[in-house]
Amino acid sequence: MPTLTLNVLSLRYSSWSMRPWLALTHAGAKFETVTVELADMGTPNAPPLAQRRKLGSVRGLFPVLRVDGTPIHESLAICEYAAEALPQTGLWPADAVLRAEARAISCEMLSGFGALRHGLPCALFGRVANFTPDSAAQTDIARVCEIWGEKLERSGGPFLFGPFSIADAMFYPVRTRFRTYGVAIPASLGAYAQALDTHPAVRALVDLARNAPRIASYDAALRKLGGDPDAALNSR
Amino acid sequence: MPTLTLNVLSLRYSSWSMRPWLALTHAGAKFETVTVELADMGTPNAPPLAQRRKLGSVRGLFPVLRVDGTPIHESLAICEYAAEALPQTGLWPADAVLRAEARAISCEMLSGFGALRHGLPCALFGRVANFTPDSAAQTDIARVCEIWGEKLERSGGPFLFGPFSIADAMFYPVRTRFRTYGVAIPASLGAYAQALDTHPAVRALVDLARNAPRIASYDAALRKLGGDPDAALNSR
Repeated sequence: MPTLTLNVLSLRYSSWSMRPWLALTHAGAKFETVTVELADMGTPNAPPLAQRRKLGSVRGLFPVLRVDGTPIHESLAICEYAAEALPQTGLWPADAVLRAEARAISCEMLSGFGALRHGLPCALFGRVANFTPDSAAQTDIARVCEIWGEKLERSGGPFLFGPFSIADAMFYPVRTRFRTYGVAIPASLGAYAQALDTHPAVRALVDLARNAPRIASYDAALRKLGGDPDAALNSR
Repeated sequence: MPTLTLNVLSLRYSSWSMRPWLALTHAGAKFETVTVELADMGTPNAPPLAQRRKLGSVRGLFPVLRVDGTPIHESLAICEYAAEALPQTGLWPADAVLRAEARAISCEMLSGFGALRHGLPCALFGRVANFTPDSAAQTDIARVCEIWGEKLERSGGPFLFGPFSIADAMFYPVRTRFRTYGVAIPASLGAYAQALDTHPAVRALVDLARNAPRIASYDAALRKLGGDPDAALNSR
């Protein structure tokens, strides 16, 4: 196995960093997590591309996996690498058509849900009371619930395709957003949310994130929405 | 091999439909192309989700591949399905790290380049003279040229990773945009543009697109930019 290093932004907030971290951890990959500290992300004062590249980025974003030094960017491509490097861990469903469906909803996460991603910023320990998503975000939320409902009904759970897969890693940051913003989901999806929250890789992520660096601009954004970025810091 | 049907929007314009069509065609997959006719796409009068679903969409968009009837959405997921179903056709590079890089830039295409995609709408036969991309689109264009330059320098061409791969299918619609809008690219990338234009699957796509339905709203958008949607209809 080559030497793997995953460069992430603070796992306290970075939904894209969480996804491959969860997949690699669930698969039992031996890898080092290196957290890149960048202030003012998401603001006009964010560090320029050249500086982000010096810190290991390829296109200016994180995460980036280094495989014996060679950088692989894009969260889903990193998850695919893990699935191939550790095939016995079943990161994708074994059935070809189910695997294609799992990739389809993972790609949909990657390319879609912009209103949900931008309107409800990810903050693992943040809680925002009395939040009302705008109508575009509500459309995204309804589509997420539709996907979850369809896949869980067929698989019988506990995860979207039965065992934990990359699709679950891709959607976990949505689950945390639902909790942060008090988004109501159908009761039939409660067991899935619970299964995610108690999955060992998710627990390890949350434990690590408790000591992850703060990004002041992200905390400020949450406070602007009336929220507390540390509300759930000491709960599991 | 299961029965494959690819539901596409008009291949005259739909960059997302072109991508898996090229991958499936290059791989020699036996599949039926079914063109869904939708008026007013890209306008507030676009058909509602329920109607698009009746026409075979999953999340409201196309393409959708049906595998013995089961819908697989998302262009990249369809390409992955083709790569697995026809492994001997080498739709991904054989080397694991190169394959991861090819997936990374394919995911980058899927999730990024929004300014290029929205500011320079795809129209295979359209030509727009004296077009100046805005600064965000110019940043995207520079990044595309950087990716192409890096990969071609290493592979030696003719395609990004040597033989034609899914990464080339993902970037072909960018190449057509560069031609449509007269975007200048470094001379060192000219051979790659030529290799794409003369690839048998691309030639087949262009031939098919000549008879693909028009989408009036797309033609109108191109005319609004001062372009002619049919300028190159009779050239190869």
